[in-house]
Amino acid sequence: MRNFSENHEWLSINTATVRKSLGVDLPLPKIIEACVERGIVAISPWRDQVAAAGLPVISKLVKNHGLKLSGYCRGGMFPAADAAGMEAAYLDNRKAVDEACELNAACLVLVVGGLPGALAGRAVHKDIALSRAQVTDGIAQLLEYAKTCGMPLAIEPLHPMYAADRACINTLEHALDVCDALDPDQTGALGVAVDMYHVWWDPKLQSQIQRAGQKRLLAFHVCDWLTPTTDLLNDRGMMGDGVIDIPKIRGWVEAEGFSGFSEVEIFSTGNWWQRDHKEVLDTCIARHQTAV
Amino acid sequence: MRNFSENHEWLSINTATVRKSLGVDLPLPKIIEACVERGIVAISPWRDQVAAAGLPVISKLVKNHGLKLSGYCRGGMFPAADAAGMEAAYLDNRKAVDEACELNAACLVLVVGGLPGALAGRAVHKDIALSRAQVTDGIAQLLEYAKTCGMPLAIEPLHPMYAADRACINTLEHALDVCDALDPDQTGALGVAVDMYHVWWDPKLQSQIQRAGQKRLLAFHVCDWLTPTTDLLNDRGMMGDGVIDIPKIRGWVEAEGFSGFSEVEIFSTGNWWQRDHKEVLDTCIARHQTAV
Repeated sequence: MRNFSENHEWLSINTATVRKSLGVDLPLPKIIEACVERGIVAISPWRDQVAAAGLPVISKLVKNHGLKLSGYCRGGMFPAADAAGMEAAYLDNRKAVDEACELNAACLVLVVGGLPGALAGRAVHKDIALSRAQVTDGIAQLLEYAKTCGMPLAIEPLHPMYAADRACINTLEHALDVCDALDPDQTGALGVAVDMYHVWWDPKLQSQIQRAGQKRLLAFHVCDWLTPTTDLLNDRGMMGDGVIDIPKIRGWVEAEGFSGFSEVEIFSTGNWWQRDHKEVLDTCIARHQTAV
Repeated sequence: MRNFSENHEWLSINTATVRKSLGVDLPLPKIIEACVERGIVAISPWRDQVAAAGLPVISKLVKNHGLKLSGYCRGGMFPAADAAGMEAAYLDNRKAVDEACELNAACLVLVVGGLPGALAGRAVHKDIALSRAQVTDGIAQLLEYAKTCGMPLAIEPLHPMYAADRACINTLEHALDVCDALDPDQTGALGVAVDMYHVWWDPKLQSQIQRAGQKRLLAFHVCDWLTPTTDLLNDRGMMGDGVIDIPKIRGWVEAEGFSGFSEVEIFSTGNWWQRDHKEVLDTCIARHQTAV
């Protein structure tokens, strides 16, 4: 297992972690500037943040600073109420692949979607098996395109509490079943993003990480699970503040040969987004060295 | 599949559903009175409610009204920080078995516990595998006693969002692994409580219900998953108001031969606990007939 205690060369900042500074939206160029100032060499930006600044602007900043992208957030949201919705999702996902290529991301992270309409509180049906079938079909279709660009797709299993509205792939086992079905030869074109916030609870986590192996472990996200958790979406904890045995899980992933970045992704309306982003980044660096 | 549309002979009310009426605590005798008035023939009371009224009082009410108990809530919380804590948990669980016997409950429901201290926001360790081992040991020990009383134990897998603080058994598969280990002959002394709020999202739900079979399907709880869900614990929905395909899951359970009660268990600080309990019970009856 790599020694993280002496520097932060393997730290990546998912830019949602500093989406806000002192409660106010922080533009991506400012986030990049603060990362570069701290010797952080990798980020994982969100599409809306890139769009707000303009893809050419961000692309230039990334190149000029020699930043690496541990991933690009995010594609997915495949299920839709009708064929037109499915087609629109596909076209938008192609665009996400193109953006990921422009930014030279390690992978495009897929948050696959749930029941159509559920995110707006108005699910158009209750057939989660149908959504899961549409997800598999959607990934299959996108994979064909992504392969032509050489952009790996990383299925991110989301915590089961998001099954209805954000992602109906909720275990690493399920994500790997999809990988087996669509990329049986383990070409590296399709794999998983292991975000411990979503999977830490799973009694089969270690065995499924072993099943994934190096070829399918495309991204590794860290944060912590707080007790109590006061919001289903935006109350993630800083590494070390919660109950996840983070080093143990990192050990499992690295035992398979994973040698990529440890990406910090924290959504925190009430705490970290209320602080100055420089303090947040400094804390990420410190905890990367002591708690990851 | 049984026809629920014409009456409510298979409806049971988990008494937490009407724990409060118009925001005020409602004593269990009042709950029982309102159930009896509506021809509801089964309940599943909580220990704290029984203790507040007195076990002899409740026992007499149950017998006089000929009420059935679809379960008794709840035993469990096995993991502890030290041996004294484990012993205290065991003794309290024996008492829960005794109470369940006195009330002639169909089973004692087990919410098995998580990381010691986590429920109070101060987990004493992060080793969920240790907690899981303690849970298995605790159930094994309690099972010996429960067998002498003829009281079946029903392991309730809780939603993964409760893994840290309430129950570290989070899938039906895991619960059945424990059943296989401790009661390989499927004697009926150990089984599961299937609460769809906790397991609806699981892609392996149908196959694990089939694996459980009639002998291990000891209880069946219904409510609904709301989008959005605003609180991790107390924002459960009334059947029909959320995204769970309830009849489909009931069909799977009944296909295995389950012929017990459909127990409504809704925790709802912001909605149902603010209403008059009579309205809530009437709604339970109506939804039992139309949405379950």
